[in-house]
Amino acid sequence: MEQEVNASAKPIEALDSANSQYQSTGNPSPGTEIKVFAPATVANVVCGFDVLGFAVNEPGDEVVMRVTDKPGITISKITGDNGRLPLSPEKNTVSVSVQHYLESIGRTDLGLDIELHKKMPIGSGLGSSSASTVAGLFAVKTLLGDDRDVAKLLPFAIKGEEMACGHGHADNVAPALLGGFVLIRSYEPLDVIRLPHPAGLYCAIVFPDVDVPTREARKIIRNTIQMKDAVTQWGNIAGLISGLYTHDIDLIGRSMQDVLVEPVRSILIPDFYVMRDLAMQAGAVGFGISGSGPSVFAFTRDEETALKITQALQQHLTGIKINSHTYVSTINDAGPRVL
Amino acid sequence: MEQEVNASAKPIEALDSANSQYQSTGNPSPGTEIKVFAPATVANVVCGFDVLGFAVNEPGDEVVMRVTDKPGITISKITGDNGRLPLSPEKNTVSVSVQHYLESIGRTDLGLDIELHKKMPIGSGLGSSSASTVAGLFAVKTLLGDDRDVAKLLPFAIKGEEMACGHGHADNVAPALLGGFVLIRSYEPLDVIRLPHPAGLYCAIVFPDVDVPTREARKIIRNTIQMKDAVTQWGNIAGLISGLYTHDIDLIGRSMQDVLVEPVRSILIPDFYVMRDLAMQAGAVGFGISGSGPSVFAFTRDEETALKITQALQQHLTGIKINSHTYVSTINDAGPRVL
Repeated sequence: MEQEVNASAKPIEALDSANSQYQSTGNPSPGTEIKVFAPATVANVVCGFDVLGFAVNEPGDEVVMRVTDKPGITISKITGDNGRLPLSPEKNTVSVSVQHYLESIGRTDLGLDIELHKKMPIGSGLGSSSASTVAGLFAVKTLLGDDRDVAKLLPFAIKGEEMACGHGHADNVAPALLGGFVLIRSYEPLDVIRLPHPAGLYCAIVFPDVDVPTREARKIIRNTIQMKDAVTQWGNIAGLISGLYTHDIDLIGRSMQDVLVEPVRSILIPDFYVMRDLAMQAGAVGFGISGSGPSVFAFTRDEETALKITQALQQHLTGIKINSHTYVSTINDAGPRVL
Repeated sequence: MEQEVNASAKPIEALDSANSQYQSTGNPSPGTEIKVFAPATVANVVCGFDVLGFAVNEPGDEVVMRVTDKPGITISKITGDNGRLPLSPEKNTVSVSVQHYLESIGRTDLGLDIELHKKMPIGSGLGSSSASTVAGLFAVKTLLGDDRDVAKLLPFAIKGEEMACGHGHADNVAPALLGGFVLIRSYEPLDVIRLPHPAGLYCAIVFPDVDVPTREARKIIRNTIQMKDAVTQWGNIAGLISGLYTHDIDLIGRSMQDVLVEPVRSILIPDFYVMRDLAMQAGAVGFGISGSGPSVFAFTRDEETALKITQALQQHLTGIKINSHTYVSTINDAGPRVL
């Protein structure tokens, strides 16, 4: 069953490879090259643990993909990773997800070389592996002239995520791929819904350069929780979704409360509550952990306030001898793009 | 802080009595009488335990309120309750909430007599006490010419609910009062949001006449739950809210799943899963328990399907020797009304 994808606030049914009827006929000649950017993403969005995420305009990763004359995928270069990522195509999430995609469309005859340029920190809680994977998948899709909706790439991106993080969650890959705000209502079957958002919403991101591996950050989350806390949480996610649809920034802000995950994960983030106070005092609409951290983010109504927040937080982190990177951006509605 | 209430998908800030600056000046003469209807409500809506509810056009309760010349509230008559409800004004939720309201506006000088006509089953999971309370509050507000938005009555209605059910939840009183679909994002502070819904949505309700007291139905719900189940639940409530805003009846339907409360509460409802199968086979969009049960409800795309469902379920219940009442209705967007 092939479904149309409507980019504005409509559910998207992403097919898994087994169901896909698509057969590629594109035949790019050796030497053809493409450069693609895919955005960083903020998963969870405070009250939507594992089901919500949005994309930002910066940072993000770049993939250069070149058609070769020898079947199979190679990775010739990775920059910006401080040697942390594997060049072996069987171990790198970009090549692994591209390989899955090629298999699904019957094009393992193709030869591809990949350069990955990390333009964002790894292990930052900003969907670093998702940005790389989505850039790779969008590159190969474009090279092959596959004109299906990008949502069709989602199952392959999730496979890459599974390899990178030990769990096949979609709250980073889905917004990186589709752009904007994305809800993953269900994983089985995969049911992804693109949400609207107020036009004037700015995002301030601060990455304190401390190590919080995603796998570890997941482990500390409680498996059992109080029903009353869950009720609070789903009241808030329902409020956040309402605020996104009605462009009610106040409602978005007061819904950004997390009584379940933040109290635990914030322990791994230096001076989390001090940073929150600083951000709220500086005029943030809401504040929280980006993904599994250590990055934090704030929503604001304008660029000036977002800049004020990143400056205040960076200054505080410098004072406690922690390096940081800051980003100010609107929501990225486009997802990946050819550079 | 007095706030305007926008009836279409906007948050409503209901003030508690302590903050209210309103002073009544209305002076209805003894003998003045008003008759008010307030609707039954379906709370929880499957995936929104304790935070969601909607009102229907039938059934509902009626209150006749008459100004007397002696200060204080009396209840002269209750019909349709099989003698289950107290005539004593200190013990009846209608008079208690009306008394709270009168105190808040400084009008304990007023004399009021109440007739309560129960037009719906008690202990049915259809917000029976809420309908009575809201009818009473709307009657006194109208008699006194209090032209503030009905949302101002919410704190008094919650007080009545506290007395009737042992907990001051708003997922019945808020939709009974405001009409339509209502989200209670937060209780402290009270933050109530009116949600839109598709125009063509019909609701089929079946009340199997077995006893499921709200207090008992709450007790059997687990206090601790699995985080993974909570994530499933808030993915679904987020999907349901999205479906309401986009008028996507398919999305509403597939979001109507409850992995936490229904598995427990359904035990108290005769042949719950048989009824669900019958309803879904007959074309229901979604199916679940209304409030704490034993009533069940289904959404449909048309009146004919709703009628087919109520007939099939009633026939099944008759077969297992259980009496039942059925109702078919659209969503009631008006809330209480003067008859």
